[in-house]
Amino acid sequence: MFEQLGLIGCGLMGGSFALALKKAGLVKRVVGYSKSPSTTEKARQMGVIDVEAPSALLAVSGADIVLVAVPVAATENTFKAIRHLVNIKTLLMDVGSTKRDVVDAARRTLGNQLGAFVPAHPIAGKEQAGVDFADAELYRDRQVILTPIERTLTVQLKQAETVWQAVGSQVRMMSPDAHDAAFAAVSHLPHLLAFAYMNGLAGQPQAADFLSLAGPGFRDFTRIAASDPKVWRDIFSTNKDELLAQTRAFRDALQAIEQTLAQGSTDDMTRLIAQASTARAQWQPPPP
Amino acid sequence: MFEQLGLIGCGLMGGSFALALKKAGLVKRVVGYSKSPSTTEKARQMGVIDVEAPSALLAVSGADIVLVAVPVAATENTFKAIRHLVNIKTLLMDVGSTKRDVVDAARRTLGNQLGAFVPAHPIAGKEQAGVDFADAELYRDRQVILTPIERTLTVQLKQAETVWQAVGSQVRMMSPDAHDAAFAAVSHLPHLLAFAYMNGLAGQPQAADFLSLAGPGFRDFTRIAASDPKVWRDIFSTNKDELLAQTRAFRDALQAIEQTLAQGSTDDMTRLIAQASTARAQWQPPPP
Repeated sequence: MFEQLGLIGCGLMGGSFALALKKAGLVKRVVGYSKSPSTTEKARQMGVIDVEAPSALLAVSGADIVLVAVPVAATENTFKAIRHLVNIKTLLMDVGSTKRDVVDAARRTLGNQLGAFVPAHPIAGKEQAGVDFADAELYRDRQVILTPIERTLTVQLKQAETVWQAVGSQVRMMSPDAHDAAFAAVSHLPHLLAFAYMNGLAGQPQAADFLSLAGPGFRDFTRIAASDPKVWRDIFSTNKDELLAQTRAFRDALQAIEQTLAQGSTDDMTRLIAQASTARAQWQPPPP
Repeated sequence: MFEQLGLIGCGLMGGSFALALKKAGLVKRVVGYSKSPSTTEKARQMGVIDVEAPSALLAVSGADIVLVAVPVAATENTFKAIRHLVNIKTLLMDVGSTKRDVVDAARRTLGNQLGAFVPAHPIAGKEQAGVDFADAELYRDRQVILTPIERTLTVQLKQAETVWQAVGSQVRMMSPDAHDAAFAAVSHLPHLLAFAYMNGLAGQPQAADFLSLAGPGFRDFTRIAASDPKVWRDIFSTNKDELLAQTRAFRDALQAIEQTLAQGSTDDMTRLIAQASTARAQWQPPPP
């Protein structure tokens, strides 16, 4: 049980965390700050936070748990803004979709408070961003990846595990590098491909006619293409090397199918599609 | 109201059509044939068809409506097998996902009976193939594209429209070429990309670890990758030229994102993602 959550970034992810903690009875008071004062005000009106803080630093003042839920590119500046009031007994977490850059930013900025920081990535989200879509159930039955480093304190790591489990998540731990490589492959690359596909389609003269014929396959394949541009620009940029390695692997696989198609080898094409179809059919979503 | 449906191919698409016609009270009797005798027998046991025919030709005998629901690559041989018993008053349709090749096959084989043929593509399906998944509601609230040619008879075209509307579909008409270009863009290319993505992922040493972290975005993006290899091999092969034109457009869009990422231009990246995100957010599925 915590006395006070300091929430920096009252959007979808941060707002949902505050609501989930309140619902689970894990926190007495939420003090929130967002870069946009109208967001902070709306979060208070919605009951997502109890008190509006005029700065990130003041949101942290007196908090025994702090969540930094800002775009990944803003993480380092947020750490700089709050570091003087982060207590070594505080549980400090983020929700960033990339982890090596966040850990690097923490190492550069948090100094003696580095041990209080538990890097976290909840595998949850919606296409719609913003506090309007905050949902106490957003993290239920979702995985949360914690990527502690050698200086992360055991007390905080254990607390982080308990908090996420209390809001219904499954907790997994891995290194920041292993996290970033895996999510480049199973999340960042699919987003990049969905964006590229929509751009390739929308750039054609008959795009409107084509789109009027699209069905359920298109709907599901492109759902993630509607995601927030700034969020994904930052994710791509902070995980650039892993992501470009994944686009190369994809291009090779694409070329294999294109060449087989051009050559007209039906046996090879059956084999290539069967390989993909079997891999996908065998995939099981992580158990709730 | 028809006396007898001759069904050639008692799988998901054909079986669902038979069930839908029966449910709508549009047909008195269904005579079915599948290449595999066990499929035909199962279709009869399930009540999808009433009578098992020992050949495609005998399934057509006495039918006033005939549906050819075989893999597109088998269409021409099926036409050859049945042409001697196709009456000019019969309504003859297919359900193929490509249309120019089917129309070409019809021109080569159907002779004076060509006017009885109404090329049809219902935009419906499931990942699971086979009569076990046949569903009287498969075509409800789905689009069905009819691609008549200059020799298609008006009586049959009107009948085809009525039949599909009676099972709950919306009917649209276009030329075979326009159909194939559109579906290369909004259906065949997404399938090809989903297959390539799965192959690129499954070929990596850490594939199993990566897949254990995949979430809802991955699930939806790759759903169509589980589709039937032979069905899609045939679709790709019969629509090869349009599909390869679409992969080129996609590669250009992919390269634009990759280059922007490598160069680190955040404004350009925001613009590229916003373009995709807006296009997808504005898309509306065809109204039911």
